[in-house]
Amino acid sequence: MEDFEVIEGNVTSPKGFLASGVFAGIKKAKKDFAIIYSEKKAKAAAAFTTNKVKAAPVILDMEKIKSGEAQAIVVNSGNANACTGQKGYEDASSMAFMVAEKLNIDKDDVLVCSTGVIGVTLPMEKVAKGIELASQELSKDGGKDAAEAILTTDTFTKEVAVKLNIEGYEAYIGGIAKGSGMISPNMATMLSFITTDADISKKALDKALKETVKRSYNMISVDGDMSTNDTVIMLANGMAGNPTIEEDTHEYEIFYNALLYVNKHLAKQIAKDGEGATKFMEVSVVNAPTEDDAILASKSIVNSNLVKTAIFGEDANWGRIIAALGYSGANFSQDAVDIYLKSNKGIIKVCENGGYVPFNEDKAKEILSEKEISIVVDLNVGKYDALAWGCDLSYDYVKINGSYRT
Amino acid sequence: MEDFEVIEGNVTSPKGFLASGVFAGIKKAKKDFAIIYSEKKAKAAAAFTTNKVKAAPVILDMEKIKSGEAQAIVVNSGNANACTGQKGYEDASSMAFMVAEKLNIDKDDVLVCSTGVIGVTLPMEKVAKGIELASQELSKDGGKDAAEAILTTDTFTKEVAVKLNIEGYEAYIGGIAKGSGMISPNMATMLSFITTDADISKKALDKALKETVKRSYNMISVDGDMSTNDTVIMLANGMAGNPTIEEDTHEYEIFYNALLYVNKHLAKQIAKDGEGATKFMEVSVVNAPTEDDAILASKSIVNSNLVKTAIFGEDANWGRIIAALGYSGANFSQDAVDIYLKSNKGIIKVCENGGYVPFNEDKAKEILSEKEISIVVDLNVGKYDALAWGCDLSYDYVKINGSYRT
Repeated sequence: MEDFEVIEGNVTSPKGFLASGVFAGIKKAKKDFAIIYSEKKAKAAAAFTTNKVKAAPVILDMEKIKSGEAQAIVVNSGNANACTGQKGYEDASSMAFMVAEKLNIDKDDVLVCSTGVIGVTLPMEKVAKGIELASQELSKDGGKDAAEAILTTDTFTKEVAVKLNIEGYEAYIGGIAKGSGMISPNMATMLSFITTDADISKKALDKALKETVKRSYNMISVDGDMSTNDTVIMLANGMAGNPTIEEDTHEYEIFYNALLYVNKHLAKQIAKDGEGATKFMEVSVVNAPTEDDAILASKSIVNSNLVKTAIFGEDANWGRIIAALGYSGANFSQDAVDIYLKSNKGIIKVCENGGYVPFNEDKAKEILSEKEISIVVDLNVGKYDALAWGCDLSYDYVKINGSYRT
Repeated sequence: MEDFEVIEGNVTSPKGFLASGVFAGIKKAKKDFAIIYSEKKAKAAAAFTTNKVKAAPVILDMEKIKSGEAQAIVVNSGNANACTGQKGYEDASSMAFMVAEKLNIDKDDVLVCSTGVIGVTLPMEKVAKGIELASQELSKDGGKDAAEAILTTDTFTKEVAVKLNIEGYEAYIGGIAKGSGMISPNMATMLSFITTDADISKKALDKALKETVKRSYNMISVDGDMSTNDTVIMLANGMAGNPTIEEDTHEYEIFYNALLYVNKHLAKQIAKDGEGATKFMEVSVVNAPTEDDAILASKSIVNSNLVKTAIFGEDANWGRIIAALGYSGANFSQDAVDIYLKSNKGIIKVCENGGYVPFNEDKAKEILSEKEISIVVDLNVGKYDALAWGCDLSYDYVKINGSYRT
């Protein structure tokens, strides 16, 4: 990480971005309304849920994003505005309109996100109040409040910022996210907002976002369920003043690597904060014949309920790992597979050439007693790798989802 | 069900089939060895796991089944003989050889199944003892013992038998199965053995088995994990003496319907006995544009951790149901979707036209308090239906898989 530096910060770290997070009464007591605003109209790129059932704000944003530009994002938590029909779509449009009025910008430049309970229409009086308050409170220090206001069952805020050097110009990328339940490979009930003051062409921005989403948010799993509201939005306002970054250049590489760091960091934070999680798990599939094989394999393992419960139970059950590899659809040769378990307490080989290898059970227990566990699967057939992240499946996951009535 | 009658019984109900179940010491205390034997060489059909990591007995049986004939099935529980390399394959071959010697039949006519822990080679002395005992104990009453001996974490035996009338001839179909964990759409850690004395052509037998497996075992989900050992084997010895059943005849229809009943019954028993299950859940998707859409949709819903935990929590959370429908890959129109919850306590509509409909929460609670819950999803666009079966996701699932060290 030579070309960028991790700093304290979030979406308001890049030049020209303000944010706010307020309480409008949609949730019972916690902040539930956020606005992220750029002083200058920004280039905008986004990725949305592939669920066929899309929430109203997702449908709205998919139209708005076509212009390639935006200036503000308004977000409410506590209500997903999903499965709410024509009324839901009108409510989402109203949200954009109200924000545009307050901030004196074009309504087409306001993107809208919602997260929370499905199937209930938005309480529009509270929404109006939230927009009024959030517009007033926009500030350079508001990123933390925004990070708080977008949470649902999350237990901590997800924030990150990095500083880049682009041809001598100082630029920043910052982000906030929320996750927790319905987190599956291919996004999640997750929202992620990334800002940058770097000047970058629309084409390069789209490409960088797409490629980094594939290697970050799409590689996490809490429970295998994919939500109706998943959204990643990125705004680039160009206020750093650097020469515009174009594709296939050294500067693009710097930008890409910094953005990948930001998105991976947020994705991992989401996996760590999975509903009921007691352990964080990284699945590293190495030496696959193609990147797609490595991705298929790592996602399948990280998504397996039996692997998740084995990690919860601190059980070196490599049979479940190789079974999940087997039904992943990835190309590999069973006889070549080696599996390792790794943590701060060391590393141990638990499967060799696709079968049993004697290992020290006590050492395995010690490694698995840690909070962060790495499963390394070496396919030994190619040179492509992938990383996926998730959490264990605990009693509390069942408790949260078995008794939690949103 | 006019053309067949459900009777008490199992694999030994059809004429000419004997079975046994004994304790050989692979498991700690319970029966762990079974043989099913036909006095006459039988036509044989089978379906196997699609997991790329296949256990040694699966690899062996896939070769043996090519002949289209078999006379005995030997099964051990407590050890899956999976991920055991060349040694595992040789051990499985030895099992077939030993059984053939004891029963004085051709080793090529002995199919082999194993279920249990992955990655440990078979204790061949115990295997030899099991085969000796099980061969001695073969009897017309041994079906129940065999049903017991094939279990792993199952809590009850799965047995079924039906009596058919084929052109005036009395014929029987009987079955036993085991399931419990690693149960996913597309088979499971599940073994199922079906016998019949009906005379049926090999082609018709293959077709009937394939079509009924698709609508039974492939429609159940406990945890979404697919095992290395899943096997369904069917033997037809023709001893009922009926004129050979051919495809596309009225007799084939009778046979098909009876076999579908048998396989559905066993599949549902497996779902009911899912690890940690407190409730049985049936997902009925109706009026889909194609059967494949109905299958995709019902499997996706029955496999969702969030739907499973909602059923555990007796929560009428239709948002999770429509979200799982949304990512299923099925074709449907959100605006046309109606969702109902049903049990012995009644039926209630919880979603109309893909959105909120007011419903009586107390009535919903009452319906969901039952042990058997039906989720009915009406896509309102076509005329195809599918049924899938599963169980809830409970604390005990986590307990069994988080602390159970096979």
